Amino acid sequence: MGSEAGKGGTVAKAADVGPLAANVRYLLRRAQLAVFDELIQALAPLGLRPAQYGVLILLKHAPGLKQTDVAGALGIQRANFVVLFDELERRGLARRDPMPNDRRSYALYLTAAGDEVRERAAKREAALEASLDAKLGPGGRQQLLDLLGRLVAS
Amino acid sequence: MGSEAGKGGTVAKAADVGPLAANVRYLLRRAQLAVFDELIQALAPLGLRPAQYGVLILLKHAPGLKQTDVAGALGIQRANFVVLFDELERRGLARRDPMPNDRRSYALYLTAAGDEVRERAAKREAALEASLDAKLGPGGRQQLLDLLGRLVAS
Repeated sequence: MGSEAGKGGTVAKAADVGPLAANVRYLLRRAQLAVFDELIQALAPLGLRPAQYGVLILLKHAPGLKQTDVAGALGIQRANFVVLFDELERRGLARRDPMPNDRRSYALYLTAAGDEVRERAAKREAALEASLDAKLGPGGRQQLLDLLGRLVAS
Repeated sequence: MGSEAGKGGTVAKAADVGPLAANVRYLLRRAQLAVFDELIQALAPLGLRPAQYGVLILLKHAPGLKQTDVAGALGIQRANFVVLFDELERRGLARRDPMPNDRRSYALYLTAAGDEVRERAAKREAALEASLDAKLGPGGRQQLLDLLGRLVAS
């Protein structure tokens, strides 16, 4: 089984993964890496990584969110989030304000410059959507959103 | 918009993510994190992480694969893969053999102990499948596999 793969020939990297090809977790990871790869490349000219872009989107939608809530919503670990947000703040794209009722917490806000970068990133992301829809086929996007939503909700 | 979230109240972390809730990439990431979280917990008693488990599965299916091919198939960066495989080898779960036609490359193999751990991990993973199916609903798993396959293939 698969012994030809050991003889030094070329191996179809994504093709012959045996039982993993029908493994939901494996395919979720591969699909996530594939679509993030495209987004990473699309955002690179803006010096923005997908997680940073996610922060800008979230702060546009809900200005004043607490650090822990933004990190939680994006699935970013606290220590990593602090580093990530420090960089956004240093670049003038976002800022921390002490919260009125809880001086140990900070409310996060987008700056005008951050909103501008977010807008440019959104245009670049939008340019990827047609090819995503072509891959997923008619109705595929909504089906996928529904199925993923069920995994996330529970 | 969302200003109540900034007033120090509790914020529904996964609920109010605004436009991200309809973003395929965001939901792919969240769903991937969710299902990996379950797998991480299920495999922890075996001292196995999902990526290591993936290596064991792949080497069971195709013994003798080259390091670069295993890393490629699992989407693991080369430097990370070396560290990961070193640990499997140190624990006696897998081994590297020099390749007959290319002394600079190594063929990777599962050991008997590695196969035993893989089998135990597979049982633990299998125990997660019923709840995954319950979340995805009737036919959901096959639909999801199809859609993810389209994203990975291209």
